[in-house]
Amino acid sequence: MLTVILCGGSGSRLWPLSRDLHPKPFIRLPDGESLAQKSRLLAESIAGGDETLVVTNRLLEAKLVEEFREIGRGSARYILEPEGRNTAPAVAAAALDAARRHGRNIRMLYLAADHLVGNRAAFAKVVEAADKAADAGHIALVGVDAKSPKTSCSYLESGPAGKVAFYPKPGAATAERLFDSGRCLWNTGIMCVRAKTLLDQMARHCPDVLQAAAAGLDAGRSAARGGNAFVLLDPENFAAAPSLSIDDALLAKTGSIRAVHGDMGWNGVDSWESLSALYSPGDGGNRSLGDGEALFRQSTNTDVFSHNRLVAALGLDGHLVVDSDDVLLVAKKDRADDAGLACRLLRENRHPATRAHRTEFRPWGNFTLLEPAPRFKIKRLELKPGAAISLQLHRRRNEHWIVVEGIAEVTRDDETFLLATNESTYIKAGHTHRVGNPGRIPLVLVEVQSGDYLGEDDIVRFEDVYGRI
Amino acid sequence: MLTVILCGGSGSRLWPLSRDLHPKPFIRLPDGESLAQKSRLLAESIAGGDETLVVTNRLLEAKLVEEFREIGRGSARYILEPEGRNTAPAVAAAALDAARRHGRNIRMLYLAADHLVGNRAAFAKVVEAADKAADAGHIALVGVDAKSPKTSCSYLESGPAGKVAFYPKPGAATAERLFDSGRCLWNTGIMCVRAKTLLDQMARHCPDVLQAAAAGLDAGRSAARGGNAFVLLDPENFAAAPSLSIDDALLAKTGSIRAVHGDMGWNGVDSWESLSALYSPGDGGNRSLGDGEALFRQSTNTDVFSHNRLVAALGLDGHLVVDSDDVLLVAKKDRADDAGLACRLLRENRHPATRAHRTEFRPWGNFTLLEPAPRFKIKRLELKPGAAISLQLHRRRNEHWIVVEGIAEVTRDDETFLLATNESTYIKAGHTHRVGNPGRIPLVLVEVQSGDYLGEDDIVRFEDVYGRI
Repeated sequence: MLTVILCGGSGSRLWPLSRDLHPKPFIRLPDGESLAQKSRLLAESIAGGDETLVVTNRLLEAKLVEEFREIGRGSARYILEPEGRNTAPAVAAAALDAARRHGRNIRMLYLAADHLVGNRAAFAKVVEAADKAADAGHIALVGVDAKSPKTSCSYLESGPAGKVAFYPKPGAATAERLFDSGRCLWNTGIMCVRAKTLLDQMARHCPDVLQAAAAGLDAGRSAARGGNAFVLLDPENFAAAPSLSIDDALLAKTGSIRAVHGDMGWNGVDSWESLSALYSPGDGGNRSLGDGEALFRQSTNTDVFSHNRLVAALGLDGHLVVDSDDVLLVAKKDRADDAGLACRLLRENRHPATRAHRTEFRPWGNFTLLEPAPRFKIKRLELKPGAAISLQLHRRRNEHWIVVEGIAEVTRDDETFLLATNESTYIKAGHTHRVGNPGRIPLVLVEVQSGDYLGEDDIVRFEDVYGRI
Repeated sequence: MLTVILCGGSGSRLWPLSRDLHPKPFIRLPDGESLAQKSRLLAESIAGGDETLVVTNRLLEAKLVEEFREIGRGSARYILEPEGRNTAPAVAAAALDAARRHGRNIRMLYLAADHLVGNRAAFAKVVEAADKAADAGHIALVGVDAKSPKTSCSYLESGPAGKVAFYPKPGAATAERLFDSGRCLWNTGIMCVRAKTLLDQMARHCPDVLQAAAAGLDAGRSAARGGNAFVLLDPENFAAAPSLSIDDALLAKTGSIRAVHGDMGWNGVDSWESLSALYSPGDGGNRSLGDGEALFRQSTNTDVFSHNRLVAALGLDGHLVVDSDDVLLVAKKDRADDAGLACRLLRENRHPATRAHRTEFRPWGNFTLLEPAPRFKIKRLELKPGAAISLQLHRRRNEHWIVVEGIAEVTRDDETFLLATNESTYIKAGHTHRVGNPGRIPLVLVEVQSGDYLGEDDIVRFEDVYGRI
């Protein structure tokens, strides 16, 4: 069985914790694992999980590879989307790729990287049952008991003779009706299907999606790096795919769905409420999440996600506070889902706080933007032992580097030299340079950029051990 | 008439906007002026205001001088307290100093630097009336109509024959009773009195306060700098003063009080509510204060003080959000006064967020702590044109300086050289150094400190144009 992990989506409901470049799959849970890591471990817990196919945005590749490396998971095959086009094109590309490589009969298990399955044994049994239904030519969807009339997931309603009515994310009134009927399941997005079933159904119900995915795959570029295989879908062809969810493009139209009921500790982690529920409350039902301090007074049922700041909550009841380096969200819990709305509004205005956190992860480590000023920028870079940034140059910005922890190996034009803690160097615009960490502890570097243009796109890469040229 | 401005107090009720080193008088109001500046302008609006005497903490001296310089006010006489001992010792020191220099008959007007008088013409009339009462040997206190049973100020109750009962900051029940009586005024803290009256009354009701203040003054050190005269009270002698408010030490005990009723647009600025009230609300009664962005959705009557972060308020009603670099306060407005309590709790634990903001002001400009790490610190320094830091050395920390805006004149040991924007230098521990701004625009410098000890107290000053040696 081939497992497909769909790792995309902006997860704007969990903004400002999630960002375009740090979507929900990368959010860490109380045990320190991310949803992406948990999905990979879950996929590989299924006996017969021969290969893992990951579909993600090209901008998330390095981050995701690093997530999987952290949990000691080896090679996978990645289909990289040049841009997010919702789930239908991603599902199609995975099925096409699987059929080409393994034949149209290949058994497929689709998982999303942004939800949680608590009980792996129960999950294995559910997948076994779903796989049987898939074997009979159905699209087998795993559903769980609906616990509220929520509008953030689709619903499955079983009818006579195993027939299933599929309701894509409903409005509030429909959700109420479906929930009250007592016959509906939440659709988890976990799907078992033969590639040929899926491809045939998509050819019938959403041929344009299938065609664009196929064209993207045909003209895509393959590469192998660090034990992983990558296919970058062709940007132009893939851009022709309509941006549709698999729910709307196919599942709401096909008559081939079978529902498999699962009781496996599922959590969609699709709201602040469901994320908070993973943490145990303290006195007064308050929760202090994250690595910052929280001080509660006369407050109850209040959740504080704080980073490096002290949060004082006075007289709050049923509130949510999410503190990040550049955005602060304060909400009454029953309006917390409006975070998604706020995020989308800001994204339309290209607000930088929707794109990335101040700290961004790279294959070599991470950097934090400490001060963004018009004519200079201050960053702290952290390089893992053995890691190095690419050999690069900037046309318009100069960089000052000061080593504040560890040891650095600097290449500047034709010279290579070591910098110890408390030593510094200067890279003038137009000169090639690279810094690596030859030591055994993390290298921390303060970088002060100065120049008349400081955009991240002022970079020419010559060599990159992570293949980013 | 000699005007005394008492500029002290921690203003913990307005924490985290106010800090020990940035108390209420330094908070900027909507028109851009600080309370300290407004007090000085008010003091000097009185005809016959011959001299201004300022009593403040020695740590606030430079900051206060700068505040007054900003509004073009010239020389003043400063009495500097080595530590805050509440208002009674400060009031005593001012009266003693005034009596010695101008004779015991000197007419005195006491003002606090942390409240607001909107109507200067009305104020002048009130002072005239109060001065008359002072002339008759009374302690004339200016009271305003009580508008609520608040517990953060003292009350004046007029009795028969001009006699006044004085109630120091009452508990909630007493405040209710006083307010309901309809006969009580809030005490503004504005006082007219002859020095001799005050000194005689203090000698009778709080001789220990008077004695410690006198000893502190006797053994104090005088200096003149930049057109101002300073007396630093002797630390040891002044420390013997009991830490008492003038309300408790004298006003609650003496029978010499007269109340003068004023209607002069007074605002004690002694709560978040009174501070917010200075700003006009927008849609839904929400206020966005400070220079950050705020996004309101489904929110009403909510005040957001934000600095450089985006604040999204969802579904809030009657809330206060105060965002600062290192502390975030979120409160239901009716619990907002607990900020003072939270601040005091944290202060007991020597939490750094009670002492200063990440940005601190100095005579030469300001610095912002961008990253406090155990083994390195990153600061941004901004020097005004013509300003210079003191000639200094650090025993244990090294400093890297990078000029990112303007031009710097650096002295290092025996050499002096210029650094243009984008140039850098290095100051090794143990070497004397100074940086100045010889240019006409602000100099912005990134300083990376590195070493095994990075406390602010690792500094040896050799020369300082601001007299801080």
